[in-house]
Amino acid sequence: MGFPPVIGMTLGDANGIGPEVAVKAANLYLEEGERVLMIGEAWLAQRALDLTGIRRPLHTVSAIAEVHEADEGLYILDTGRLRPEELLPGQATGAVGEATVQAFHRACEFARSGELGGVIFGPVNSDSLKMAGLTLMPPDLRQNYQMLVTGPLRVAHLTHHISLREVLDKHIKCDRVLTLLRLADHSLRKWGMPHPRIAVAGLNPHCDGVEDSAELVPAVAQAVQEGIDAYGPVAPDSVFRQCIDGQYDLVIALYHDQGHIAVKTWGFAGNCAVMLGVPFLVATVAHGSAYEIAWRGQADASMMLSSLRTCTSLVRGEGFPQSQQAEIECE
Amino acid sequence: MGFPPVIGMTLGDANGIGPEVAVKAANLYLEEGERVLMIGEAWLAQRALDLTGIRRPLHTVSAIAEVHEADEGLYILDTGRLRPEELLPGQATGAVGEATVQAFHRACEFARSGELGGVIFGPVNSDSLKMAGLTLMPPDLRQNYQMLVTGPLRVAHLTHHISLREVLDKHIKCDRVLTLLRLADHSLRKWGMPHPRIAVAGLNPHCDGVEDSAELVPAVAQAVQEGIDAYGPVAPDSVFRQCIDGQYDLVIALYHDQGHIAVKTWGFAGNCAVMLGVPFLVATVAHGSAYEIAWRGQADASMMLSSLRTCTSLVRGEGFPQSQQAEIECE
Repeated sequence: MGFPPVIGMTLGDANGIGPEVAVKAANLYLEEGERVLMIGEAWLAQRALDLTGIRRPLHTVSAIAEVHEADEGLYILDTGRLRPEELLPGQATGAVGEATVQAFHRACEFARSGELGGVIFGPVNSDSLKMAGLTLMPPDLRQNYQMLVTGPLRVAHLTHHISLREVLDKHIKCDRVLTLLRLADHSLRKWGMPHPRIAVAGLNPHCDGVEDSAELVPAVAQAVQEGIDAYGPVAPDSVFRQCIDGQYDLVIALYHDQGHIAVKTWGFAGNCAVMLGVPFLVATVAHGSAYEIAWRGQADASMMLSSLRTCTSLVRGEGFPQSQQAEIECE
Repeated sequence: MGFPPVIGMTLGDANGIGPEVAVKAANLYLEEGERVLMIGEAWLAQRALDLTGIRRPLHTVSAIAEVHEADEGLYILDTGRLRPEELLPGQATGAVGEATVQAFHRACEFARSGELGGVIFGPVNSDSLKMAGLTLMPPDLRQNYQMLVTGPLRVAHLTHHISLREVLDKHIKCDRVLTLLRLADHSLRKWGMPHPRIAVAGLNPHCDGVEDSAELVPAVAQAVQEGIDAYGPVAPDSVFRQCIDGQYDLVIALYHDQGHIAVKTWGFAGNCAVMLGVPFLVATVAHGSAYEIAWRGQADASMMLSSLRTCTSLVRGEGFPQSQQAEIECE
């Protein structure tokens, strides 16, 4: 297209902290000389700017192409779904649920057609979604693997929100692990990391279990045979620290808490969640809509800022941004 | 007894890094105006002092009472089991295995009789123990719960080195969790923390599982009824960070890696492992004998130093030392 790929950022659930973290993150990111495109209600973004005291001009565009040709600055493609009287801070409603989903699906359409390089969606509220009777994810994003990124710690999860027993009974399988290894390797190369070193976390303490030897060892062996720089299974209590220390570029965690405990305990604030296995880059923040502090100006935008930096760098094929490590580790 | 309780520290496996980390930690701890008592071969401790260039006088005592009445300084109760020609750095042998166990058992005898306030044992090597045909733990220490401590993050483990499947099948039981809650509360109070806030980590993502509601919820409810300041089950991916941030004093982890991932990912260097549920205070370091760097002067003594500080403070009923937090978090 001749222009660097543009990321679209939705505002998330209007009654939560989404609009606030979006404009706060945008403001910080604009200082780095970037353009930011939001997709949502223009009046809502302006209200969040007013709340946070950010005095930046907000340019409304009617097509993504306008942003491709524009200078740095803050843009919004107005979806115009929600009306001002429907803004009810801290309350789940079907109206905000519907507006949340609609803005995200609109952004995904632009990404599918190649107008957007990727989409970041703001924090949603599951009650609002339920009241709207809608599913956030369009069909082509429903099968995905979550990769959490916080500085040098990157963790792709084999499984989502399922019980530990279901993980053991159904998911610790050689072919599933191999599928994720291939997908992670392919994605990281595409995003600008030419030789990703990928470690598979073991399942049992010190990898001393039947699943570790029967399922994980052959998955890694096959991946290595295919030219993937795969390691493991590695003792699960050591592998995340080894990744932080630079020994690996990515860890494959086998269950939700294996990876989430590492990420949240080490560096809670700088997280960003990127989907693996979907047709275009989709990312979000690792927190919810935080209704209890909505529209008070108190929300921390560091995860949204991290998402903006990470996604922009990835869609440009420049790998993961390097600058955030020390800042996150010691904050 | 009229004197502050004395901790006995064994040197661990002579062919590993144990003697080196013992004298390095002792040297640093002595600078804080303390006495240090080692239990092991005097010639071995002297050789470690020579290796590390530490020029402190080593006083050999023949009874613990001599240390009770002594000034600050470095003392050793000579067990005299190993001969200098049996020192083979980096090699597992039955002789060092036997000497390791004998020194530890001797220290435990002093603790049982009240002469020692507690015992710290140096890093052992499982191959040496096997070659000696000996079990490290005397019978009265075999039933224990491991509590890992690193700055403000303290984690007591319901289960040890068993498979995740065995954890699910046998150990996530209300009565077992309640037993550990009572024991942890009792121990922390005895050690100088008058109102310990104890969180039980959930089993499944966001505590959204049958075991969480059927076994963990009633265990916490019963503990609260008994006057224990218990919380949970708390989402396992958040509870450890909340403990670091000061919301809890201790987290009960349900399986080995749930706790170990948090501790090792957050602050690997400052760990110390304390046993819960044993008749006297026993602690050790969270690393092994590291044969590959034995007797080279390269070993990091920060875990042994942390063990010395922690145990001394606990046996004096002064709670956990507070000073190490920032230093560990940002190193």
